[in-house]
Amino acid sequence: MAGGVGARFWPLSRRNRPKQLINLTDEGTLIEQTVSRLQGLVDADHIWIVTNAEQAALIKELLPEFREDRFILEPLGRNTAPAIGLAAVYLHRHDPDAVMIVLPADHRIKNIHEFHFCLSSAVEVVHDSQVLATIGIEPTRPETGYGYIQMDQSGIRLRENVYPVRTFAEKPNLVTARVFLESGEFLWNSGMFVWRADSILQQIHEQLPLWGAAFKEIESSLGTPAVQDVTRRAFESGKGISIDYGVMEHAPKVAVVRGTFDWSDVGSWDEVWRLMPHDDDGNAVRGNVTLAQTQNTCVIGGKKLITAVGVSNLIIVDTDDAILICPLDRSQDVKTLVDQLRAEGKEGVL
Amino acid sequence: MAGGVGARFWPLSRRNRPKQLINLTDEGTLIEQTVSRLQGLVDADHIWIVTNAEQAALIKELLPEFREDRFILEPLGRNTAPAIGLAAVYLHRHDPDAVMIVLPADHRIKNIHEFHFCLSSAVEVVHDSQVLATIGIEPTRPETGYGYIQMDQSGIRLRENVYPVRTFAEKPNLVTARVFLESGEFLWNSGMFVWRADSILQQIHEQLPLWGAAFKEIESSLGTPAVQDVTRRAFESGKGISIDYGVMEHAPKVAVVRGTFDWSDVGSWDEVWRLMPHDDDGNAVRGNVTLAQTQNTCVIGGKKLITAVGVSNLIIVDTDDAILICPLDRSQDVKTLVDQLRAEGKEGVL
Repeated sequence: MAGGVGARFWPLSRRNRPKQLINLTDEGTLIEQTVSRLQGLVDADHIWIVTNAEQAALIKELLPEFREDRFILEPLGRNTAPAIGLAAVYLHRHDPDAVMIVLPADHRIKNIHEFHFCLSSAVEVVHDSQVLATIGIEPTRPETGYGYIQMDQSGIRLRENVYPVRTFAEKPNLVTARVFLESGEFLWNSGMFVWRADSILQQIHEQLPLWGAAFKEIESSLGTPAVQDVTRRAFESGKGISIDYGVMEHAPKVAVVRGTFDWSDVGSWDEVWRLMPHDDDGNAVRGNVTLAQTQNTCVIGGKKLITAVGVSNLIIVDTDDAILICPLDRSQDVKTLVDQLRAEGKEGVL
Repeated sequence: MAGGVGARFWPLSRRNRPKQLINLTDEGTLIEQTVSRLQGLVDADHIWIVTNAEQAALIKELLPEFREDRFILEPLGRNTAPAIGLAAVYLHRHDPDAVMIVLPADHRIKNIHEFHFCLSSAVEVVHDSQVLATIGIEPTRPETGYGYIQMDQSGIRLRENVYPVRTFAEKPNLVTARVFLESGEFLWNSGMFVWRADSILQQIHEQLPLWGAAFKEIESSLGTPAVQDVTRRAFESGKGISIDYGVMEHAPKVAVVRGTFDWSDVGSWDEVWRLMPHDDDGNAVRGNVTLAQTQNTCVIGGKKLITAVGVSNLIIVDTDDAILICPLDRSQDVKTLVDQLRAEGKEGVL
């Protein structure tokens, strides 16, 4: 899944170059990492990318070896449920027994071995059942930026590390996040899923009947010249909704894999700072940077010299046409700034 | 006096383009302001500029109407006493009765009428005496960045607004600065002076005999081809010293004019912020700037978009090849940064 627009990483991300297409943490783009991370688990030929036409062109530049017919194009963004449903239609046509691993293209993961083990466990659980599996991450801090999944530890596990889901919880406040962390029953909702294509289509049909009907129509038009128009009409008239809210929270058979690998959805600039290598003062820098008497500051630049003296806890980003300065703990507010730039008629830099 | 290097205003000021040659507060360069401020008081033909050869070339671009032979060139920087002594030699040769008004080229002054009045009072006092007059500024805050001059209010004033000097005081700490302010006896030492050329040469001869001898030699060589070599040798072998420390503090007849005009020596970035027009949030900006949830911040840029969100009390300066970010109350530390850039071999941007 490589759609979406990345306002939170402006000015590095732009309208037509969202988070997964930029080199955030200096390890290559997140979409390249997401694809290469599957080596040894999934045949390259079995990887599909759901995105829009504009981003598909940029992704092809990054991944030139990728087969043209492995791109599934959303006519417009309608959140995750329609994107996943559309992909399921294509995969189901490709192989009626297809098992889908749904991965956002913009996550960062370490411990690949453990990551592969979790996905394998999930595939074992779902490949001959109607179970919808989600990957949960064992929390390491009372994070308020993620949703949570409560495991049902009272009953029978589906595998050593796979539990039925008791409930999905929205992003909590700090007090609740602490309770979640201490309980040992809650995992971070990573937004990664594993299921049979026919299982998720069946659940979409039941939970989101309008989208279910639309996908039936798209499936019938597959391989005909009408498919693009049918898809466009479906997305133009359909309402955007997330797979969590639209399907998972009401599905009858939901399991969660307890993942213990190092995971981040790289949600804002302070996360980028956390993920980059630091010097002794907690500074993380890229580019031509000189810092004096400066702590816990993240600087992302290029050839132009960026200097700071006497500052702390800042993010400083310099691109060819725009500079951003923001406290690390206010990095959520970059969205506000982007809104203001739009209101001021400065769309040219967005 | 337009010498010196302006490390405190890096990256806008550079080695070969110091403070007086840049457009700091968006009112034109300080040297242009200094010259035009004398209109109505001093004939344009009577204005001389002491500087080095490199800066003279830049000044000629700014002030093309200025006569070539009104530049007095220091071979190298040796602080204010030698610069002033050299100028006095030229002026004394030009007119044995010359009265000098010594003005740094990098100050900002409002209330021109009051400024002219102070200079006129000083000229009246010194033109037929050996008094060395200095311009003091009535303090409006317990400033720790300036030296102070204590008036002797016990005896006879030389004019309504001209007092004998009791003592010169170095930059005080805050407690002392408050005492100075409350006493009503202390004025800020502005570094502006008025005296006869022969009076200051006489005092240099007495207080700084080596420089006195050097100036005698330079005076003898004036109008001969040897003058440049003689001057260079004098400056190469002479020690740098300020006029305050080297002459004023020990001179027998020193007066201070009590100036009540609005004056600033524009000593650091926070002063620039103070002098610029502010919006309701206390922000002062120049260039293409968008600020969100930002207070008391000074942004100096050009065409490139500079943005900040959630910050306060920062100075942000963007030039073609360098960016500076610094808290306003740490703007003294820009010097430290400049030292570090030099140590890192980044002289190219200095």
